[in-house]
Amino acid sequence: MKTILVTGGAGFIGNHLCEALLSLGHRVVAYDNLFLGRERNIARLIPDGNFVFIKGDILDAGEFKRIFENNRSDVIFHLAANSDIASSCKSPQTDLLNTFQTTIAVLEQARINGIKEIFFASTGAIYGDTNLAVAEDTGPLLPISHYGAAKLASEGYLSAYSHNYGIKVWITRFPNVVGEYATHGAIYDFIRKLRNNPNELEVLGNGEQIKPYIYVKEIVEAILFIWKNAVEEFNVYNIGVNSRTKVSEIAEMVVAAMGLPAKIRYTGGSRGWVGDVSEFKYDFTKLKKLGWEPKLSSNEAVRTAIEKILIEQQNSAQ
Amino acid sequence: MKTILVTGGAGFIGNHLCEALLSLGHRVVAYDNLFLGRERNIARLIPDGNFVFIKGDILDAGEFKRIFENNRSDVIFHLAANSDIASSCKSPQTDLLNTFQTTIAVLEQARINGIKEIFFASTGAIYGDTNLAVAEDTGPLLPISHYGAAKLASEGYLSAYSHNYGIKVWITRFPNVVGEYATHGAIYDFIRKLRNNPNELEVLGNGEQIKPYIYVKEIVEAILFIWKNAVEEFNVYNIGVNSRTKVSEIAEMVVAAMGLPAKIRYTGGSRGWVGDVSEFKYDFTKLKKLGWEPKLSSNEAVRTAIEKILIEQQNSAQ
Repeated sequence: MKTILVTGGAGFIGNHLCEALLSLGHRVVAYDNLFLGRERNIARLIPDGNFVFIKGDILDAGEFKRIFENNRSDVIFHLAANSDIASSCKSPQTDLLNTFQTTIAVLEQARINGIKEIFFASTGAIYGDTNLAVAEDTGPLLPISHYGAAKLASEGYLSAYSHNYGIKVWITRFPNVVGEYATHGAIYDFIRKLRNNPNELEVLGNGEQIKPYIYVKEIVEAILFIWKNAVEEFNVYNIGVNSRTKVSEIAEMVVAAMGLPAKIRYTGGSRGWVGDVSEFKYDFTKLKKLGWEPKLSSNEAVRTAIEKILIEQQNSAQ
Repeated sequence: MKTILVTGGAGFIGNHLCEALLSLGHRVVAYDNLFLGRERNIARLIPDGNFVFIKGDILDAGEFKRIFENNRSDVIFHLAANSDIASSCKSPQTDLLNTFQTTIAVLEQARINGIKEIFFASTGAIYGDTNLAVAEDTGPLLPISHYGAAKLASEGYLSAYSHNYGIKVWITRFPNVVGEYATHGAIYDFIRKLRNNPNELEVLGNGEQIKPYIYVKEIVEAILFIWKNAVEEFNVYNIGVNSRTKVSEIAEMVVAAMGLPAKIRYTGGSRGWVGDVSEFKYDFTKLKKLGWEPKLSSNEAVRTAIEKILIEQQNSAQ
């Protein structure tokens, strides 16, 4: 049994990870400022005696320091970040603070408190806009979003801290993640738009953007697999899916699942927003060799996510 | 004739770059906090009517902003950074502020003031500790020093800003640079130590560290060549040398050039300090294809630098 700090623990992926870590018998401290995370994402975990939720901001130095004084953590799963990529072009500070400076704050507390394991949620966005099937050793790394830049900057610092202070690090680069308790993303947006207007769905871009989507329960499985089986001092893994889904397919699946008569209208252009990587291909051979790959295809992940989100919203509306 | 802002303009490489830009007929504004830069590095440039020196800190937001109100810059050559890599293990804040946050401040001013060209001095340290002859597309990028991490973080942000706001960027990754007006580095340290004790020279590590060294006047030539000839919206170039020099050879050359009886004593260990990349090999085929390579070998660069630094110190002592 370890004591594990999960930053962003009330966020979309964070709450599923907390649940899985609890089921393995660990003590879990979830820390979240609830900017994007939500209390109802963790309501089901609160009764568990091994679960502690603390509402607080990593960038509030005094508050964040107290976590470590009151809870001797063995491992930090650092998931907290701004995940609203589309907004960052207008406000570059958002990712600088919430995606990068949060990582620095985590690293500093690990250094000061002698915490020797950090698991980091990075992203395919660090690779930027490339036609290559990107692998862990692909370069150059030229992110086109502030989110990607902040994650790359975080990776660089994780590497330097690992070497300077003997911290074991796992960097995992996520594709698009979908599923229940989502706080943002295409599926979430489409459902919200369709509730406002069941007759028309406006989709950013031309619908041709094509990316790999993974179901959240599967990425949590991958996270735990990598944490257990990747034994280097510094580990970097792409987490991928064996297929990809077009934005137009997601729109059609959402409309069909909701049983609506909506017409889909595309705003046009190859990118959904400035910084959007419209076509993205992952090589995750390294993870397959380690022994893990997802069971669901990208389309199956999207379909599962739509169902689960609709059920979740129905339940919370009751 | 362009108006060019050179951050770190009184620093080791900055002063040579300012001199070269002036000789091309440009107006040059050198900005430097004189932490590592020195007024005597630019004394020879002050009489030039096209040269302005402003002492100030990039991280003083109000002060730095005024530069752009008073000087309409066409281009920024961003060289300002903490270049004392060896000290950063004990003080991670130094590079975070002076190497990374300075880049963010430059990018923000470029965004706000519509400056469309940024030339950035990056480093081979972003590649980390690898046996590969690193090229521009080598990955993964796992720096082992805070300096390398801060430069990689800066590169990521340059990429995102370039894409989001239409800024043309040149990233050049430097090897070790040597020559007159140095403010730090092995040659500089060895000379200083030998002036204190002409009988013994203590060298950090086992002397076997081997790296490419380039003479400062040659790297300035490379910078101007790349600025003129690399025409992509986003350009990344290694600047390299065709050979490498061992630290033990540098020590021996310094002792010989000073005509001293000093015994060289090695502290041992394969690294000079935590974060030192002890063996480093550059592939700079891309720059050769663009049409540039240095005339001096690494050993010739070191020998030239020693001579020039000794002459410079003799002159400034008179």
